[in-house]
Amino acid sequence: MTSGSTDYDDFFNKTAPPEKFEEKICIINSFVQYYKASDQKLVLVTSGGTTVPLESRTVRFIDNFSIGTRGSASAEYFLDHGYAVIFLHRQRSLLPFHRHLQHNMLDCLALQSPETNSHIYVNQESTVKLLPILQRYSECQKNRRLCLVSFTSLGDYLHLLRVACQSLRPLCSRAMLYLAAAVSDFYIPSDQMPEHKIQSQGEKPLHLSLELVPKMLKPLVKDWVPDAYVISFKLETDKSILIGKAKKALEQYEHKLVVANVLDTRKKEVILVTKDKEELLALSDEEEHRGMEIEEKLTRKIADLHLDFYSNSAIETKTSH
Amino acid sequence: MTSGSTDYDDFFNKTAPPEKFEEKICIINSFVQYYKASDQKLVLVTSGGTTVPLESRTVRFIDNFSIGTRGSASAEYFLDHGYAVIFLHRQRSLLPFHRHLQHNMLDCLALQSPETNSHIYVNQESTVKLLPILQRYSECQKNRRLCLVSFTSLGDYLHLLRVACQSLRPLCSRAMLYLAAAVSDFYIPSDQMPEHKIQSQGEKPLHLSLELVPKMLKPLVKDWVPDAYVISFKLETDKSILIGKAKKALEQYEHKLVVANVLDTRKKEVILVTKDKEELLALSDEEEHRGMEIEEKLTRKIADLHLDFYSNSAIETKTSH
Repeated sequence: MTSGSTDYDDFFNKTAPPEKFEEKICIINSFVQYYKASDQKLVLVTSGGTTVPLESRTVRFIDNFSIGTRGSASAEYFLDHGYAVIFLHRQRSLLPFHRHLQHNMLDCLALQSPETNSHIYVNQESTVKLLPILQRYSECQKNRRLCLVSFTSLGDYLHLLRVACQSLRPLCSRAMLYLAAAVSDFYIPSDQMPEHKIQSQGEKPLHLSLELVPKMLKPLVKDWVPDAYVISFKLETDKSILIGKAKKALEQYEHKLVVANVLDTRKKEVILVTKDKEELLALSDEEEHRGMEIEEKLTRKIADLHLDFYSNSAIETKTSH
Repeated sequence: MTSGSTDYDDFFNKTAPPEKFEEKICIINSFVQYYKASDQKLVLVTSGGTTVPLESRTVRFIDNFSIGTRGSASAEYFLDHGYAVIFLHRQRSLLPFHRHLQHNMLDCLALQSPETNSHIYVNQESTVKLLPILQRYSECQKNRRLCLVSFTSLGDYLHLLRVACQSLRPLCSRAMLYLAAAVSDFYIPSDQMPEHKIQSQGEKPLHLSLELVPKMLKPLVKDWVPDAYVISFKLETDKSILIGKAKKALEQYEHKLVVANVLDTRKKEVILVTKDKEELLALSDEEEHRGMEIEEKLTRKIADLHLDFYSNSAIETKTSH
């Protein structure tokens, strides 16, 4: 595949859309529609990893380590900064607000009076922690500020990303895309996939051959949401190649910003890479100690950048009229 | 690798033990020790999928679809049947009792009085559902009947399985192993793994070559817990090969029972395969309708089989004295 546009068209043609696709499209469209006539800023946050199935009746798949920490934390802070948020996330990955609940939540619950068994309470210790979270969550539910849409496979994700972009397109620079999901670079096309679970045969090793996923950031920036503020992420384990790869992505896709980060230090520091500069954001020891999250700083900075962009494009629109 | 024992020794020598290994060993040993002098029956339930890392600083891995539904439900019912349970599970997979909590648990919580903000309670609808679960959970916590140990990778799982077996061995036929975890058949040995995240280079496809994981059921049955009641699972997507593969496993490893199931129908029916017979367990439409789980039937049947085995081996022991 060498031509400029057919490789992603080809991907979409060959990859089945997710289950409940129509329903999910409807949820996204209705959320965007709700804010269309306002001046509310919207951000699409993508979060978690995509799976790459190895069999069409999938038992095995390739995945990555992401559980959606970056995306779910960022979505919360964007809500605090006044955004409405579409949260396109891997099923069963972390969700904004809900992420603060323990996996062993039952340990935080207690019966009011074991004799009557009438009420279950959150115990005192957990209440202190959960109270502000529950209040922020209720507020954003009441005001319809958060829209949750889930995916599992790479194919699901890309189909949903495209329809979300089509929905956001009319909002122009009021829309932001914060593409924090960890999207696979490789996949097995469905026509090359075995139907049934791969069998271990004797002592033979298993050989897998994966194709490169078309770079969707290209049509996304160019065709799907040409006026939106688009941010991508770059995660590496090898720091020495990080900035080079971030710069290359900006040149290639011509979007606004790459958030570059290294696996081992991703919770302490990120580098904001734009065409003409690099800016390090890091937590001080004191900030880390009191439990501040790097996403708080990151989203504040990005909300400022988006505001500048939005204001400038509004001026341009007025001038050109 | 052709010799009978060196392939798994070799696997353990080449694969690093999990983080906090000593701590986990200590938790298992102390739990087993607590019941050693009693006649309490113990079951080790393994649950969830194992990951196979593709890089040593792992960003990507091969996984499977299991989220631990079978294992976590079975562990609950084994507790109901009077067992003490070691639950060796994939991190972030479903846990007994906790599995009934929604992913969006915040939606089940409400403030007692929004003005004073003093208490958070579980809303009425969820209380009806959670009350019996919370009571069963509290009971088993109070009586120290459940021991949770987590793993992530295939290597972690096998290291922990081996030490759990070493710990259970002295209990002889009082111990049961219910190996419901979905263990990978293939892996990349650490000396063949790249250190850093695999890069996509140009438009080249990615080739992966995976080795067969040594069949640990062999040393497990023969050397690690020779007197225990051992049950393995066989999941296929193709029904036509299922029973043949289950029979072959029994011949090869000489354990007691294979629970055979097909991906699409695994929540409705399972087949218990022993050396001389096959027995279908299935939910009737009525049972399914009222929310019964197949694990309830499965564990009841298995508890009976284990009791027979235990009683017989106790008689044998007495007779031989």
